This record gives sequence, structure tokens and C-alpha cells, in this order.
Amino acid sequence: MNIYKTRLERLCSSIDAENVSLFMFEDRECRRDSSVRHLTGHPSDALFFLNPEGRNLLVPWDINLANQFAHADTVVPYNEFERDPVKALVKAISYFGLDSLWGRPRVEVPPSTPYPLFLQYAAALPNCEILCRNKGIYACESALRAVKDESEIRIYRHLVELTNELLDSIEINVRDGILETEADVALFIEAQARKCGCEGLSFETLAAGPERSFGIHAFPAYTDAPFAGKGLSILDFGLKYQGYTSDVTMSFARDVSLEQKELLDLTESAYDLALSHVRDHALVRDMSVAVDGLFASAGRTLPHGLGHGLGLDVHEEPFINSRVDNYESLKTGMVFTIEPGLYDPQLGGCRLENDVILGADGPEVLTKSRIVRL
Amino acid sequence: MNIYKTRLERLCSSIDAENVSLFMFEDRECRRDSSVRHLTGHPSDALFFLNPEGRNLLVPWDINLANQFAHADTVVPYNEFERDPVKALVKAISYFGLDSLWGRPRVEVPPSTPYPLFLQYAAALPNCEILCRNKGIYACESALRAVKDESEIRIYRHLVELTNELLDSIEINVRDGILETEADVALFIEAQARKCGCEGLSFETLAAGPERSFGIHAFPAYTDAPFAGKGLSILDFGLKYQGYTSDVTMSFARDVSLEQKELLDLTESAYDLALSHVRDHALVRDMSVAVDGLFASAGRTLPHGLGHGLGLDVHEEPFINSRVDNYESLKTGMVFTIEPGLYDPQLGGCRLENDVILGADGPEVLTKSRIVRL
Repeated sequence: MNIYKTRLERLCSSIDAENVSLFMFEDRECRRDSSVRHLTGHPSDALFFLNPEGRNLLVPWDINLANQFAHADTVVPYNEFERDPVKALVKAISYFGLDSLWGRPRVEVPPSTPYPLFLQYAAALPNCEILCRNKGIYACESALRAVKDESEIRIYRHLVELTNELLDSIEINVRDGILETEADVALFIEAQARKCGCEGLSFETLAAGPERSFGIHAFPAYTDAPFAGKGLSILDFGLKYQGYTSDVTMSFARDVSLEQKELLDLTESAYDLALSHVRDHALVRDMSVAVDGLFASAGRTLPHGLGHGLGLDVHEEPFINSRVDNYESLKTGMVFTIEPGLYDPQLGGCRLENDVILGADGPEVLTKSRIVRL
Repeated sequence: MNIYKTRLERLCSSIDAENVSLFMFEDRECRRDSSVRHLTGHPSDALFFLNPEGRNLLVPWDINLANQFAHADTVVPYNEFERDPVKALVKAISYFGLDSLWGRPRVEVPPSTPYPLFLQYAAALPNCEILCRNKGIYACESALRAVKDESEIRIYRHLVELTNELLDSIEINVRDGILETEADVALFIEAQARKCGCEGLSFETLAAGPERSFGIHAFPAYTDAPFAGKGLSILDFGLKYQGYTSDVTMSFARDVSLEQKELLDLTESAYDLALSHVRDHALVRDMSVAVDGLFASAGRTLPHGLGHGLGLDVHEEPFINSRVDNYESLKTGMVFTIEPGLYDPQLGGCRLENDVILGADGPEVLTKSRIVRL
């Protein structure tokens, strides 16, 4: 049985269907949802309809691509519905035989559905009840995706090896003065990614030399400015292999002042502290609150999340932050980042980010990023 | 007066405020909105609140970046609201003094607001009326953005020059056998973009050699496979300069069959036909229907839109397609693509895409992309 069939079965058996007759997924330019790829193998741009018995219909933008990659019971090109999700949903209702049912079938649309589009669905389907909620099948699917299956862990083993080799080459080439500018480093990563068989990068590489490292996400992502000169530099990148993402940040420090050294040491302490909290059932909020406390005692603040899950999306569950309404906990099989960072307009910034898997025997740090002191 | 102030004034004077007391814009990872950059200069990741008098408040994720780039009356870091849009909106209501008003202030949130988030806004603000609609201030802002102002046209003049120089170098290097693989071409573009002072690319370059050109958007975007060998190859890329995007597709044909030649000729005819429809007030649907008709007469179909507006987003108004509900028309000052393409699993694909400005004297094709017959 192929992995997509297995995933559909796991999803269908994990949902409390609550008499929902049809579930809709949407992956499109402004509303990406890698669940479509997770459940069908189709790389991007499609609608996916699923009933609680696992019967399904894929509506891809690019039919030729779907013929090559997609696993689905039926595939109908999006063009047949004028690339209009409302028209496609109406047709799907009849494809699944829901228009001939007694009563009022319940249909669930993605929680990313904009309010005006929700109203259009409701108007076009007066005989259906349209559900749109964060806690529905999408929450089930996110939770399933957060815990990696064996085939995914195999992919990660290879992906982090590629990432670690690249981290080493970058350090060597920076030390040797071969990679001198932000663009040198970013283009090196871009080229190496393809050479080692990656699909691409997880996101546009962020390379910020000492003049720009105070930004959490440098803008522009990289320029022709010098990298790894005197002061603090940040390099944040990830590889994408068979759809799955890595995400690491390596900081470089050269001829630093005492205050800059304190930033680096504090970041490393926060990283160690966060890692010491990683265990099955640990509340991610506790981890994050601990780091907030450490930073606060030094008069500093973490201006972004402490970490996030990794998978087909570079940001997915679990989201590790200290929001008061964050009740998420770590589970065996999760792959996620830990990435404390500090940013100061005068001193510059540094961040240390690695990818961690919570295995049956505890946490394992998969990537070997570090603060490089030149 | 700076351009941001001018834009805010134009926006505020163009909206029919309908007693709306506060407008909210949101630019974040899953809901990008370049209007925040258009109105404030802040590059990304922020909330922006505006009242009908033009008074405004920016809530950026990265305060250091905002201090460098943003133009706004007041700037408050998103962290002060736990990076929670509901908390930020509640505070904004009181910042603008709306909580002390008699009656029930009307507050407009972006049309991309997911239905569940809309409900959260409504629950958190029982004394406000929350509006979320496609035809609100966001439609006004999109319409304003679609017609470029003088400063934007100056940027485009330079941007298309850079794009055209790059198109020429690519052709030369492909002809000379220097760029042999998809990755060669894509990495060449990536490097040249930075060298000529661009912020980056409009999107990940799509380079598809003969084996993969049947896909509308090749997946993966580029690989180590040969480019521009026997058959049809597609290269789709864009440069991003001072925030603004170009978008061109150059196709390469080598030793083509008669059937492949017909695809190329038909694509070029469609391109010319589309261009002949470009004039002030022309309905974009008419343009698109004409091309659909031409393709249909040859037993072919255009599986994507015929074109789209360009600006701070690579896909923005006007959207040129033949949807029955598309009533959009061209206006002087618009910059947009024309990009007919044909894709055949056996023959491969080709697309011809250039950027056009509709000037006072009629259309001007800004970029010089073409089908290159090797």
C-alpha cells in the first residue's frame, strides 16, 4: 500500500467526522497548504476533496504535473471549473453524491478560507452547512504531519546529512576567504543544493553581514555587502529534499567587543536551556518561558518564536513560543527547530538554530550549526 | 512631501469611507500584502492601521527594520501584542480613540482574513462592527496600485533595462554552450540580479529543459537536467528592484518537429493577437477570449491566465483571464504581462511572456523576451 493511501486512512480514522460528509483542501498561491502534497504527492496548486471513507478527488491546476506525481481516485483539471473554487466545490458536492442526500450535508472548508469566500460558498450551496474552523480535519492533519512517519524520518536522516556537509563547507570557505560577500554565501548554498539532489531551498537564504545583522530577517535577504567581517553576521538557510525542509542558522563572529561576546554567550546559554526542556509531553510554552526569563534577567528580549516544527512546510506545528494560549506539547516523532537569537541595532545580531528530533530515547540534535568565532 | 504621504492621501480621498472609522492591513507569512510596503515603505511583516483622515499606526514584527525603512505616524513593535492580531486590533481601537465613541464604530479588516479569525475579531470587539469584504478600501488600494505613479514608472524604466540586458546575456551564454543545465541558467540569473543591484528575484526561477517543459510551472523549479537541448525549453524569471517586479518567459527551441514548430507559431500569434487588444478601457476578458478562440481553432487550450498586473507583487491587478465574471478593464499607467503558452506532454511546452505598459500613446512592450530558435 502506498504511503498516500496509508496517510488518508490514518487521517480518516483520526477525525471525529461529526457527520461531516466532505472535506475540502486548497493549495494555491496565497493560501499554501502542503497537506495536499502530504496526502496525494501532488507538489502544488490544487484542490483536494475527501470524504470520511477516504474517497477523494484531486483538482490540479496543471494536469500534466498531476499525471506525473499525483495519487488520487479521480483527477479533474481545475480549468473545467474556470479555476474557481466555488464552482469546483459545487461540482464536487454532486461528484460525491451529496446533492441527492436527504437532509443538509455538512461540508468542511479550510480554516484559511477568507471570510468573503466563505460567504460565497454558503450562498452557492444553500442546501449544505459549510463549516470553517481551526479545530476540524485540518487540525487532525496538522497533528498527523507534526509526528513524522518512518518514510519521513528516512528522508530527514539524509536531508540533515546534506545540510551538515553544507554547513562545514560554508565554514571552511568563509575561513579561507573564498566566500566573502553575502551573495557569495547565498549563491554557494543555492548551487550546492541542486548539486546534492535537493528540490531547492526551504526559503530564500538570509545572509546578513555585520552592517545588517540587527534585523531578524535581513532585508533584502542578501546583497553584495561583505559577510563575516568584523562584528556579527547571520546566515539562515534550509535545504528542501523530496519536499521536506531543514532550517539552520549559523552566526559568525569576528573581533567582537565584550558586549557582542555577551550576546553570543547568552544566545548559546538560551539554546542549551531550551534543549534541556525537550522531552515527551513537555509544554512548548514552558521551554519558551524559560528562555524569556533568561533573556529578561540580562535585560534582553527574544523578538520571535523560539522554534517551530519542520516538515513539508518550513514553519509548521509545533509552534514554540510563550503565548499565553499556547498549550501545545512535544511528542515523540516531532522534528522542530530551536533558534534563540538576539538583535541589537548597535551591536548587530546573532542567532543559533538547529533541527531537533524527539526520538523514543529523547532529543537528538540533527544538525550541527554553531556560532563560528573567527 | 514623501511618496508614502501622497499615497495615503490619494487612498483616503478615493475611498468611500461609509463611516468606517478604522482600516486594518496585514502583511504576514501566509497572507502577504504588499500594500503595507506601498503605503509605508516597511518591507514586510507588519500590521498597519489607518483612519479615514490618514492618521496611522504601524505594528512591525522587526522594530529595527522599521526604524530603518518605515514611514508612519506611530510605530509599536508587534511583540507588545504577543504577535497576536486580535490583541493588536483591540489596542488600535483604543489608540485611535474609538472605544470612547458613542455608537458602534465600523472597523474594516483585510479581505484575506480567514473566517475563524474574523469570528475572533468580532468576539473581541462586541462594540464594533467588523467589516470584511472584497470591495472595500482594499479594492481601492489595489486599483491605485494597478496604475503606476511617476516614481514607480521611473523604477520600471530601470528595471526593464536590467531585465533586457539579462535576457541578452542569457541568450548569448546559452548559444555559446556556457549555460548548459537548468541550474546553470537559474544560478546565473540569481547572481546577475544581485550584481546589478536588485533586491532579489520576483519568484524562484523556473527553468525547464525539453524533458520537463510540459509543466506550466516546472517542478522542481530547476534541476541539474540539460537546458535548451533538442526540443522545447522554458525559462520564466523576474527581477525585483526597489520592491518592484518584472516577469518574463523566454522559450528555447532546438531541432524542432513540425508539430513543435506549430506550437511555437501559435504561441507567437496568440501573443500578437493579445497585444493588438491593448488599449485604454479595453476589457481584459475580451483579450483573453480572443486568444482562447485562436487556440480552440487549433484544438489547443490556454491552461492559465493570459496575463497579470505587475508591481510590488508579481501577480496583482489587472488579472487577464476569460472568467465570465471578469469585468476588469485596462487603464493608462498599468504595467502587466502578456503570456500565452501551450503545454503538451509529448511535444513539451512553450510560453512567451513580456511586460507591457499602457502609456498615454498606447501600449509599449517594455521587455524583449522572445522565442529563441537555436
